[in-house]
Amino acid sequence: VKALTLARDLRRRKARERQGLFVCEGLRACEELLRSSVQPVAALATAELRATPRGDALAAELEARKLLTEISAAEFASAADTDSPQGVLIVARVPSRSLDDLRRHGPARILALDGVQDPGNTGTILRTAHALGFDATIALPGTVDLWNAKVVRSGMGAQFTHPAISAEWTAFRDFANATDVTLWGADASGEAVESLSPPERLALIVGNEGNGLGTHVRSEVATLVALPIGEAVESLNVAVATGILLYLLRR
Amino acid sequence: VKALTLARDLRRRKARERQGLFVCEGLRACEELLRSSVQPVAALATAELRATPRGDALAAELEARKLLTEISAAEFASAADTDSPQGVLIVARVPSRSLDDLRRHGPARILALDGVQDPGNTGTILRTAHALGFDATIALPGTVDLWNAKVVRSGMGAQFTHPAISAEWTAFRDFANATDVTLWGADASGEAVESLSPPERLALIVGNEGNGLGTHVRSEVATLVALPIGEAVESLNVAVATGILLYLLRR
Repeated sequence: VKALTLARDLRRRKARERQGLFVCEGLRACEELLRSSVQPVAALATAELRATPRGDALAAELEARKLLTEISAAEFASAADTDSPQGVLIVARVPSRSLDDLRRHGPARILALDGVQDPGNTGTILRTAHALGFDATIALPGTVDLWNAKVVRSGMGAQFTHPAISAEWTAFRDFANATDVTLWGADASGEAVESLSPPERLALIVGNEGNGLGTHVRSEVATLVALPIGEAVESLNVAVATGILLYLLRR
Repeated sequence: VKALTLARDLRRRKARERQGLFVCEGLRACEELLRSSVQPVAALATAELRATPRGDALAAELEARKLLTEISAAEFASAADTDSPQGVLIVARVPSRSLDDLRRHGPARILALDGVQDPGNTGTILRTAHALGFDATIALPGTVDLWNAKVVRSGMGAQFTHPAISAEWTAFRDFANATDVTLWGADASGEAVESLSPPERLALIVGNEGNGLGTHVRSEVATLVALPIGEAVESLNVAVATGILLYLLRR
């Protein structure tokens, strides 16, 4: 089947970038996708999907939209990338969003990820940024692809509405300079976040799970900020630490 | 091998409870275990472990302590319960801790989990409670076993030092009443957490990922507290939402 070949191919980041397509797996994420403005192009499902009323309803909707191809469990397993994908995946178009689409004045809260590598953490962070009203999440180089199936799955559909954008560091920094966005970097050596007043237009940059911010990022941000809990910070999961910072810095 | 049979058996909660033993998998968690006061009783490793200097050092330490049995990758896979256990696991004694060991006066911060089911979230929550200086985490009925290998792995060793205790609701409630611990429940309908002054001795109870607190818990707590972010709360991952609450309520 053509859709099966496509889904298999899209497990590679290069294929996703070349084709502008991604794969969404699992019941909840697929339901969210169909409710969003993201454009589905094909869907694959096994008999497993129809075993529950909820799955059956999803299958019926995919069928009505002429998207669905039913395949065997073995074929499905050869395309799926997450654990227990529940017998359903949708191939869809990556929303075309860029830094230029972000608001150039007025209050802003932007999150940037500098080398965050775990797909589950990254999806959870996207979900948090969306829930706490951040305007966009920027993936700087070294960060896992935001359209990786595991990120999409753990993001639970956040990036279908929350702008999730990949950018080079210089492009992001130049955008920030040109639009009066102040850059803050999260770093254990920084000032206590609650002792600072966040600027109207702020981007918070968080770094890699083990190594923190890249040296070029660290040297170019206006301020380094920290949770004032000493040693404990290093023991926090990156998604939890980022969640606390986003909560404290939300608009 | 006897240790292999034991490790396989300990994948079942009943076996862990009967024997008072648990399995710790993966390089980092095993390193943490050997540094803690938790008592190891046996270790299994494959040739994979010795492929890195760090793994080789761990193997040497396990050997020096006369704990190590080397087995084949296939045998190891039949005992391991987490993803990519890195060719090493340790069988160890569950620290014997009970509500009676908790301090009966002075400041206290206790976390209780009422039906939190995802092992990864639960491990992350244990890690957060430990990092933020909470005195103990109580698993109420319906919560995943705190000594499940996936919880131990994602807790990254937190429960080797942080008291992690299973208790019935009535036993926990009676302990709280007898020791002047005020019970707060996390619930989206509650009062904004930042508008309240936490009591000196506080236990925060968080509920199930989908259904929140049980009705008996909800009706018996002194206060229901919420993050004042409206609808967004339901979109937060339970480990992130709990992390924010623990940060705001820490001593």
